[in-house]
Amino acid sequence: MALVDLSQQVALGIDIGGTNTKFGLVNHRGQILEKGSLKTDDFPLVEDFIDALYENLAPLIARHCDEGKLDGIGVGAPNANYYTGTIEQAPNLNWKGIVPFAELMTKKFGIRCKMTNDANAAALGEMMFGAARGMKDFIMMTLGTGVGSGIVTGGNLLYGHDGFAGELGHTIVKPGGRKHWSTGSEGSLEAYASATGIAITAKKMRAEFPDSMLNTYPEEAISSKVVYECAIAGDATAIEVFRYTGQKLGEALANFVMFSSPEAILLFGGVIKAGDFILKPTKLHMERNLLPIFRNKVSLVFSELNEADAAILGASALVWEK
Amino acid sequence: MALVDLSQQVALGIDIGGTNTKFGLVNHRGQILEKGSLKTDDFPLVEDFIDALYENLAPLIARHCDEGKLDGIGVGAPNANYYTGTIEQAPNLNWKGIVPFAELMTKKFGIRCKMTNDANAAALGEMMFGAARGMKDFIMMTLGTGVGSGIVTGGNLLYGHDGFAGELGHTIVKPGGRKHWSTGSEGSLEAYASATGIAITAKKMRAEFPDSMLNTYPEEAISSKVVYECAIAGDATAIEVFRYTGQKLGEALANFVMFSSPEAILLFGGVIKAGDFILKPTKLHMERNLLPIFRNKVSLVFSELNEADAAILGASALVWEK
Repeated sequence: MALVDLSQQVALGIDIGGTNTKFGLVNHRGQILEKGSLKTDDFPLVEDFIDALYENLAPLIARHCDEGKLDGIGVGAPNANYYTGTIEQAPNLNWKGIVPFAELMTKKFGIRCKMTNDANAAALGEMMFGAARGMKDFIMMTLGTGVGSGIVTGGNLLYGHDGFAGELGHTIVKPGGRKHWSTGSEGSLEAYASATGIAITAKKMRAEFPDSMLNTYPEEAISSKVVYECAIAGDATAIEVFRYTGQKLGEALANFVMFSSPEAILLFGGVIKAGDFILKPTKLHMERNLLPIFRNKVSLVFSELNEADAAILGASALVWEK
Repeated sequence: MALVDLSQQVALGIDIGGTNTKFGLVNHRGQILEKGSLKTDDFPLVEDFIDALYENLAPLIARHCDEGKLDGIGVGAPNANYYTGTIEQAPNLNWKGIVPFAELMTKKFGIRCKMTNDANAAALGEMMFGAARGMKDFIMMTLGTGVGSGIVTGGNLLYGHDGFAGELGHTIVKPGGRKHWSTGSEGSLEAYASATGIAITAKKMRAEFPDSMLNTYPEEAISSKVVYECAIAGDATAIEVFRYTGQKLGEALANFVMFSSPEAILLFGGVIKAGDFILKPTKLHMERNLLPIFRNKVSLVFSELNEADAAILGASALVWEK
């Protein structure tokens, strides 16, 4: 009997975003053998999108995968349901209603396809290839344009009753607080701790402090990146923007810790480029809101995955999930 | 080979509280064969407490358990650690530090002993014998003098990295809000949604409304029970006390739903005697704070277990936990 050399097996990881879709063939060590991308919003019909994916991917698969080497397809997509393999009412995608994406993929590619949302995929990628190797209980927070999360408990991703568990960006951190630009909820974590939220905070604060360097930029140029540059240059208002953001994030993390008692919280995404400007207040306000029994136990860790590849790695990890 | 008739097997359930300890022999159907209690605070030394437990329980075991019928001992206790079988720094017990309770019990009784905190035990009891039969994802909230919680995901109790997961009563629902009388935290759920918290709210609100029936009681008589009686009599201030409590509870539950996406949330304890006065606003504010994807999916259910027996049943269920 020939044993299968697991390290030679390959998975196809696909990350679907509102604008771009990235894909890659990944081996069991987390190396990307070949990758590519296409424009998601070029395809009003999901069937055409899948045809285009197939045209792009068939040559890659032929080049890298001998018979039996491709273990499956993993897809990270907004509002993807792990249990049903569908994309449901995704606000940023052209395809409306409930799309049986995994089934369509399997029909086209002739191989099984698993799906989950992008933040869950990121958590899996981190557990298989990144900073969470060997961890059984951790929370992954993706802090980018929005705030996503993937929760791992007892070594498994938490999906909940309907597959949609882990929407921590939409938990309310300040009841009656800032209205969210898209969901309409008041005071959600995403409204403060996303790059979008940081820009809003910066615009409010610079109006209070006329001397702030933030006032040298036109309104539309204010972004978390600009706030970071001003903070690095020593601008007190810019530093306060991150401190305030870190406070809100830290308060939220304390609540998450008292829910699932993780070993670590992993932070990922553009926002964490602010480094200690955001990490230190986050840690401080997390600790101060914890019961003593949880204090100084939970590490706050930055992701170890290359940001450009993380989504592909995460999606591919779905194929090998236990 | 003789098959074991599971329905004849018995577990010993013990619920340790700061003042009283209740115990009972429970069969696989959730019937209590015999029960009793003793005073926890009569015993400054844990060894003496366990000796007294043994003296009380040996005759019960002799009466009801033929050879091989007793499957084990389950204990629900404050700050009990499921992984280590210890009680750690419990503020309401005489026994300080880290007490190896399960080990001492096994030594004395000659049978395995499992432990968890009281709210986790209640969740197990509800899953085995009560309103959560057949459910795999639910959250149990115990609303009494304090607020406890037990979280079940994928059919298993959530213990987290260190065994202390599910301290939802201590999550912050109003940052910078009401100072907790014991933990010192500001704005925790327990500070509002416990019977203690309801009494505090009532004392504040009656001062604002001199005409309220609540003002006919002396300060020390104000309790959630009195607020309920005034609400039943139609007092608007008393009704508002429960509405406000329900709002805080509902906002918290929305956040919990977006964490673990449960099928149901079970409510248990003295506070729920207020019925619709608290249930309706709780439901309303839970739904309004949920992302659309979670709305009208999660049932809010009252516990089905007899309150006097629930703790014993829950502790015994620990013995049979998968």
